[in-house]
Amino acid sequence: MDLLIKNAKVLTMNESMDIIENGSITVRDDKIYYVSKEGVVPPDFSSANTIDAKGKLVMPGLINTHTHAAMSLLRNYADDMPLEKWLFEKMFPTEDKFTGEDVYWGAMLSIVEMIRTGTTTFADMYFFMEEVARAVEETGIRANLSRGLQCFDEQFDAETDKRLNEAKELFNNWNGKADGRIRVYLGPHSIYTCVPDYLREAANLAKELGTGIHIHLLETQKEAKDSIRNFGCTGVEHCLKLGVFDVPVIAAHCVHLSDNDLEILVKKKVSAAHNPGSNLKLGSGIARLPEMLSKGLNVCLGTDGAASNNNLDMFEEIRLSGLISKGFHLNPTLIDANEAVRMAVSNGAKALGIQDEVGVIRAGMKADLMIVDTNRVNYIPKNNVVSALAYSSNSLDVETVIVNGKVLMEGGQLKTIDEEKVIYQVEKRVKQLSGK
Amino acid sequence: MDLLIKNAKVLTMNESMDIIENGSITVRDDKIYYVSKEGVVPPDFSSANTIDAKGKLVMPGLINTHTHAAMSLLRNYADDMPLEKWLFEKMFPTEDKFTGEDVYWGAMLSIVEMIRTGTTTFADMYFFMEEVARAVEETGIRANLSRGLQCFDEQFDAETDKRLNEAKELFNNWNGKADGRIRVYLGPHSIYTCVPDYLREAANLAKELGTGIHIHLLETQKEAKDSIRNFGCTGVEHCLKLGVFDVPVIAAHCVHLSDNDLEILVKKKVSAAHNPGSNLKLGSGIARLPEMLSKGLNVCLGTDGAASNNNLDMFEEIRLSGLISKGFHLNPTLIDANEAVRMAVSNGAKALGIQDEVGVIRAGMKADLMIVDTNRVNYIPKNNVVSALAYSSNSLDVETVIVNGKVLMEGGQLKTIDEEKVIYQVEKRVKQLSGK
Repeated sequence: MDLLIKNAKVLTMNESMDIIENGSITVRDDKIYYVSKEGVVPPDFSSANTIDAKGKLVMPGLINTHTHAAMSLLRNYADDMPLEKWLFEKMFPTEDKFTGEDVYWGAMLSIVEMIRTGTTTFADMYFFMEEVARAVEETGIRANLSRGLQCFDEQFDAETDKRLNEAKELFNNWNGKADGRIRVYLGPHSIYTCVPDYLREAANLAKELGTGIHIHLLETQKEAKDSIRNFGCTGVEHCLKLGVFDVPVIAAHCVHLSDNDLEILVKKKVSAAHNPGSNLKLGSGIARLPEMLSKGLNVCLGTDGAASNNNLDMFEEIRLSGLISKGFHLNPTLIDANEAVRMAVSNGAKALGIQDEVGVIRAGMKADLMIVDTNRVNYIPKNNVVSALAYSSNSLDVETVIVNGKVLMEGGQLKTIDEEKVIYQVEKRVKQLSGK
Repeated sequence: MDLLIKNAKVLTMNESMDIIENGSITVRDDKIYYVSKEGVVPPDFSSANTIDAKGKLVMPGLINTHTHAAMSLLRNYADDMPLEKWLFEKMFPTEDKFTGEDVYWGAMLSIVEMIRTGTTTFADMYFFMEEVARAVEETGIRANLSRGLQCFDEQFDAETDKRLNEAKELFNNWNGKADGRIRVYLGPHSIYTCVPDYLREAANLAKELGTGIHIHLLETQKEAKDSIRNFGCTGVEHCLKLGVFDVPVIAAHCVHLSDNDLEILVKKKVSAAHNPGSNLKLGSGIARLPEMLSKGLNVCLGTDGAASNNNLDMFEEIRLSGLISKGFHLNPTLIDANEAVRMAVSNGAKALGIQDEVGVIRAGMKADLMIVDTNRVNYIPKNNVVSALAYSSNSLDVETVIVNGKVLMEGGQLKTIDEEKVIYQVEKRVKQLSGK
């Protein structure tokens, strides 16, 4: 069914951040068919399903480039504690008990939250990823999925390694599936959970499959110090040597970069997924965002998992990325509203290699859109709408979300998910997991 | 009309942060009449107006201890620019054109936003404060109001000074009015906009009237340096000498405190209104929050005006105050969820000298309450509800707000304000102000 969105303010998110007043967008199948500057509608769309967006904003959906969706099962479960205690006493023991069905429902819970708050694509690293793929297929959201890979054994055998094989299988089963909404990357967890040969093997496999890598990199000061001690070089240099950067890479966090690290990442066209909420909450530190951007690094945004955030609200990450550097460097001109919003959209699309499909409103692009109700009080008076997005918006102002041409939420009503059932299943499973 | 809220999870915000499961709260006139732990309702309330809060959270409303409500007229108008340019080229020239009616409608816009996001009391410093008082009286919110005082003239005459007289008049006309919802403080703007004798005069007047002072203090590094150069002492020492701290004081910002400053503030029982969003956005810096709290300073939260935030969302300030110190000091145990939430409620009540009236759910207290819909996906699974408030909540999850026993919003519907009219008036006035 064709779709027409009319009377909208359209934030195209093109290079020059053009805004179309009183624009119309027509959607046919999975694509944007036509964008009108004059309120003109192509004649064959006159009977299309119509959304009147008067006074509202239409823009590309947000792209969450680093999360662990199923960890919403652990939301508000362990907070304000030292990182090691959080990880080894709280996260790992509970995650060990997760079944595939638990991961499925955790992913569903997160997908509900992401759609409600305007996220149309997410990059996920976890286990039981076939279950996450199933949730993505059913719900209509777009995703980049990777099976988290870990190996502490220097004598592992790449041929028989269970996780590498699962990753390969995930790629073969799901890459390009769900109407092209799913891409599969490899997910070597980090330099401290993968022995060097294993990391090299993961990089080789990515090359062989013609795909990319999603990895945690230099999240904490400890990781940075340990890398120097264990490998005699920085974590970035270590990855460079092992061939990790010879494929497209989403490097999550990148908080503790040296100048040379920064140069390497730029040169190798690595994308850094900045997770300000998680980095603050876990006490990981404050990334060198102004320098990362000014050196030309592609910095995108992520929420990380809901166990360390504790939500999947990309508006918050936009806000934080816009604010923190200003206060930290005593300079209110750093990271302007345009840059903050671009990180959550255009840079995210580029990071996932889908910049020719999504991230801009233009005829021929996939229709991944959201409508924000900018008639609400926090957008009044209607001054700069990009400033509003960065500084005064609320994620629950998102009222309609479209992915791949399909309406996933309209006027706050989810169209592809039985939210009550998801909540029921999650609460039941969490009770079982906690042994109640 | 009596009011009964039943089936609620009640976060009392008492000293031990007690939570009552399946609690009932009855409200008679302006007060909490009875809080039940067992779902028992006093017999004479059986026919009361009833709100079923099943699965939801009831807690005291939030207290915004530093804002300039009418500055919402300047929301998203000037961002990402140097402070001096923002202030002298953008803020002051527009504010100079404001009429009393403009300030009234700007305050109304902010009150809509505050009620919608769970704020039940705000402390405001601005001009045309009689208009703000009128907005407070009409809308039913609670407020601490102060006429901003400035004087650069060392030869001023306290008897005839226009602003001091306006402040006195505001006190005489409005202190204790609107069913006791309004208190009036004096508002000497800052040490850099009030010559020393004027600041002393304001302090004397506060003593004479038996009221308190609301002042900006050590917001920027420049202010801290200038104080040393101009007065030969820190801004805090300067205020101490002039008698400013001899009355109850809300000192907004307190970003650049010396160790000695901190001791003085604690000793003089000054309350520091921490405004993390504004301090970040204007590049003012990062306050020494962990030390301020551990030394026993009463730190409360504020949004500052919407021209520098750019919203009045206290949930964001709770989140920021919980997150920033952790990341800045690489320590995830700093400022836990309880502390962050207490700053926005209990510490705020203490800062405004109304801790015996609001900030705790207990029989006999004024009924200033909010109901948060914790059935929403971002509270699932239902683990620690205080962590949820601090880290995963959204201000638009607030669905019902009660002030002084009167329902101001129920199920997202405002009961005392014609929101459309407010938005219409604001947009009309902003167009006129910008000469369109």
